[in-house]
Amino acid sequence: MKAEIIAVGSELLLGQITNTNARFISAKLAEVGIDVYCHTVVGDNPKRLSQTIQLAQQRADILIFSGGLGPTKDDLTKQTIARELDCELVTDDEAMKTIEDYFTHVGKVMTENNKQQALVLKGATVLPNRNGMAPGIAIGKEDKQYILLPGPPHEMEPMFEHEAIPYLLGVYGKHDVISSKVLKLQGIGESELEVRIQSVLEKQTNPTIAPLASPGMVKLRITAKAKTEEEAQKLILPVEQEIRSIVGEFIYGVDEDTLASKTTELLLQNDWTISAAESLTTGMFMAELGSEAGIGNALKGGVVVYNKEMKIEQLGILPSLLDYHGIVSGECAEAMAESVRERFTTTFGVSLTGAAGPEPHDGQPPGTVWIGIAAEGMKTASYKLQLSSSRNSNRKRSVQFALHYLIQTIKEKKELKY
Amino acid sequence: MKAEIIAVGSELLLGQITNTNARFISAKLAEVGIDVYCHTVVGDNPKRLSQTIQLAQQRADILIFSGGLGPTKDDLTKQTIARELDCELVTDDEAMKTIEDYFTHVGKVMTENNKQQALVLKGATVLPNRNGMAPGIAIGKEDKQYILLPGPPHEMEPMFEHEAIPYLLGVYGKHDVISSKVLKLQGIGESELEVRIQSVLEKQTNPTIAPLASPGMVKLRITAKAKTEEEAQKLILPVEQEIRSIVGEFIYGVDEDTLASKTTELLLQNDWTISAAESLTTGMFMAELGSEAGIGNALKGGVVVYNKEMKIEQLGILPSLLDYHGIVSGECAEAMAESVRERFTTTFGVSLTGAAGPEPHDGQPPGTVWIGIAAEGMKTASYKLQLSSSRNSNRKRSVQFALHYLIQTIKEKKELKY
Repeated sequence: MKAEIIAVGSELLLGQITNTNARFISAKLAEVGIDVYCHTVVGDNPKRLSQTIQLAQQRADILIFSGGLGPTKDDLTKQTIARELDCELVTDDEAMKTIEDYFTHVGKVMTENNKQQALVLKGATVLPNRNGMAPGIAIGKEDKQYILLPGPPHEMEPMFEHEAIPYLLGVYGKHDVISSKVLKLQGIGESELEVRIQSVLEKQTNPTIAPLASPGMVKLRITAKAKTEEEAQKLILPVEQEIRSIVGEFIYGVDEDTLASKTTELLLQNDWTISAAESLTTGMFMAELGSEAGIGNALKGGVVVYNKEMKIEQLGILPSLLDYHGIVSGECAEAMAESVRERFTTTFGVSLTGAAGPEPHDGQPPGTVWIGIAAEGMKTASYKLQLSSSRNSNRKRSVQFALHYLIQTIKEKKELKY
Repeated sequence: MKAEIIAVGSELLLGQITNTNARFISAKLAEVGIDVYCHTVVGDNPKRLSQTIQLAQQRADILIFSGGLGPTKDDLTKQTIARELDCELVTDDEAMKTIEDYFTHVGKVMTENNKQQALVLKGATVLPNRNGMAPGIAIGKEDKQYILLPGPPHEMEPMFEHEAIPYLLGVYGKHDVISSKVLKLQGIGESELEVRIQSVLEKQTNPTIAPLASPGMVKLRITAKAKTEEEAQKLILPVEQEIRSIVGEFIYGVDEDTLASKTTELLLQNDWTISAAESLTTGMFMAELGSEAGIGNALKGGVVVYNKEMKIEQLGILPSLLDYHGIVSGECAEAMAESVRERFTTTFGVSLTGAAGPEPHDGQPPGTVWIGIAAEGMKTASYKLQLSSSRNSNRKRSVQFALHYLIQTIKEKKELKY
């Protein structure tokens, strides 16, 4: 089975929003073994949408559309597909009730154009919308399946997962599964990685192996096709083990692992706690850790101290230290880390101070960042980064580096323990 | 001139990464008046890439490719295009020097496969890569222009903006400009908005007007086409004014404005300062404000207090208050806001406390959130939100609501001032 994903919306072609729907739909189809051969984006233009449908009919078995089901004049997906399939549009009573209920609930008067949202292709399966008004539509015509989904991701995603996927599995029955495992590496480049694992790459057929680079990180995707998820995993395992035997030292996690999730895991395993003192990152480090459910037992809290006075008042950093070494210095970072660790009585104290950019800060060029790490029973350390002049990229990368150094420190402390 | 954007990469079709490149390229092309008719994504498969190229040649004047220029075996974009255009691949000396210099700089040995990155189409314009090794390529053949760009966004974006756009302007000369202005609204639904501005929508030709909905917010995009940017702005202005005269009360900003940027602007205009005490959001509120350059004069800092003990120790919240009302309560939120405002001596103190989810917290269901706002010379207020059970969506939405209530409070305080 081959699927093609067609997103409809001029705002996509004007570059005003990103097509995240294609990614979500593709990932869910991969899980049930349906190959995606193509993503297409077309504007709110019936003629060009018709051409796209005719082309997709030639190369795909399943056509999945997102966008253009709303109440406004430029929402034309249903109308165009109805014309292409020579199919009538009829009002779905349940969808109409959902729309009317919504307006009653919020106490507003329903405008006439909202009724358009209750129109569906005659004979179609209606996919209820749990987070919005326009229902989805699924219909089979001449060996092809057509799935119409709303554009907003928070409406489309649950509908696709809970309504469209079961519909497709019902039509086609179970078949091959495509399963992937992603290894995440730090401290090695893409090309060096490829050379090191050349012997593994050369014999790849099933599973296949693909390196992917992103700033400061490399991923290796191992993808297997098999009758069941279990068999796919069995094919992936020996390949993963072989790769680990060659470059295992650089692998910090798999799949959805992040530096924050690994940090949380290590802290909770050891019953250790953490606090942070943040300057240029104004809370991003703690926010990143806080995204992990369960971190509450490890992250006690911390302070954001943006200017010099706050560093003195809130953390008791000596004015003489700041005058002599500057705010952007290893000495300041170490003092901040030690002070926050003491004030919040935690195992680890992490600090970030620097010139986020775009302007220099306290005499230091933008992108100069110091990370301090204080740990119970260990010598306090600081690390210097020299990043770019882009404020928000510097702030994000500083947080990732702080997590990286923290993981190293946690591992060192673990070794000291035994 | 019509452009088609073709992204190459199986990882896109497997749903492992999002095609953000198409958005970036589209937005930049719109700025110089080049229409984008289609986005396409194909896998790392020479045959399907060839078919995509042949199809795009029929409908577009400019073919823009991203991805598949790297050193690994599945990087086949250049080779496939060379075959389609019947064009030789030759080594570019400057690109080779950049690659060699990189390896010298990082002190690593260059592996043989990296040389592939220096191959370019014979006779092409080489687009230097400021953030990576593989150069871009621009070449004209039989009335069509072909632009090849690397896949990683941090390499592609500066290359497209600083090298490819000037190249295209050189080839085609100046022509019509497409310019957009986006109005951002809060507190009104998409369909009600459309009904209210019906009279403006009905007469639209140039500029055109499109409503766009996203969670908790509606945008209106006004797009004009003209000879110059200035003329386009002149067409947009009266339409914007007419819309403002109807629904102006709901418009909180335009284009890239965010609630954080509006908050920053209002604080700086009045020389007012702010601090925050965060529980469930663990620093996200301060991180959001901190993304604005210049916020240093307004954001003094704050605390993250994740558990009950920290709220007592760091903010001096009375244990009896927490025992009686609970951590997730308006009383706790107000006490936190007042305490942090006092400790950091700021004009405003904002607090967030709640059950982020997925588990209940202190007896409250996930998604129950209280926001507290203390302001100099005003009565402290608290606001309750009832959100979903999704931890990270709750955290993000809480921050947006806190900014929304803060903006209302700043405006009230401004009125009191006069």
